[in-house]
Amino acid sequence: MPKVIVMYEQPKDKEGFENYYYNQHTKLVDKVPHVQSAEVQKVLNTQNTDLQLYIVTEIVFEDLEGMKAAFKSPEWQEVTNDVPNLMPFLEKPPIIAVVE
Amino acid sequence: MPKVIVMYEQPKDKEGFENYYYNQHTKLVDKVPHVQSAEVQKVLNTQNTDLQLYIVTEIVFEDLEGMKAAFKSPEWQEVTNDVPNLMPFLEKPPIIAVVE
Repeated sequence: MPKVIVMYEQPKDKEGFENYYYNQHTKLVDKVPHVQSAEVQKVLNTQNTDLQLYIVTEIVFEDLEGMKAAFKSPEWQEVTNDVPNLMPFLEKPPIIAVVE
Repeated sequence: MPKVIVMYEQPKDKEGFENYYYNQHTKLVDKVPHVQSAEVQKVLNTQNTDLQLYIVTEIVFEDLEGMKAAFKSPEWQEVTNDVPNLMPFLEKPPIIAVVE
């Protein structure tokens, strides 16, 4: 399934991050069209990397056409426009991988 | 769902990697107990990283207990023992994140 994988490293302000992320940011994701599921996953451990991964969120789309349409939607624009609001809580912007 | 996310960067020998990966390595994964699904995903693009991500494989387990049991199984041991056989085709070992 096509999806956007978003990898956040350990926040510098964990409480601030979690508060904004769960109460604001994920609610914008929930409004995006063609999303089949969106799941926030806690990282238990990692291997072969210096990345301090904290959460990995996966936004799964119905199909590739749906994902392309979603990226052009105003709702997706709102999600990307909201990412800077997370930055006060983070050391670095999240790593994003679009996969199919 | 608890899962193991395995991120491979661009292989130095793409044909050799794909041949071994799809014909040997993934078949060992398919034998692991408590696996609900295992999906190999091609990376279309990335943001906010210098990682040259190539494929992201997700091994999804029934539940956390199942994942823990799987990690202790001889079938999982065979999977991890097989990773060095992929290394001639790769620049670096894959980044692994265990999430729930």
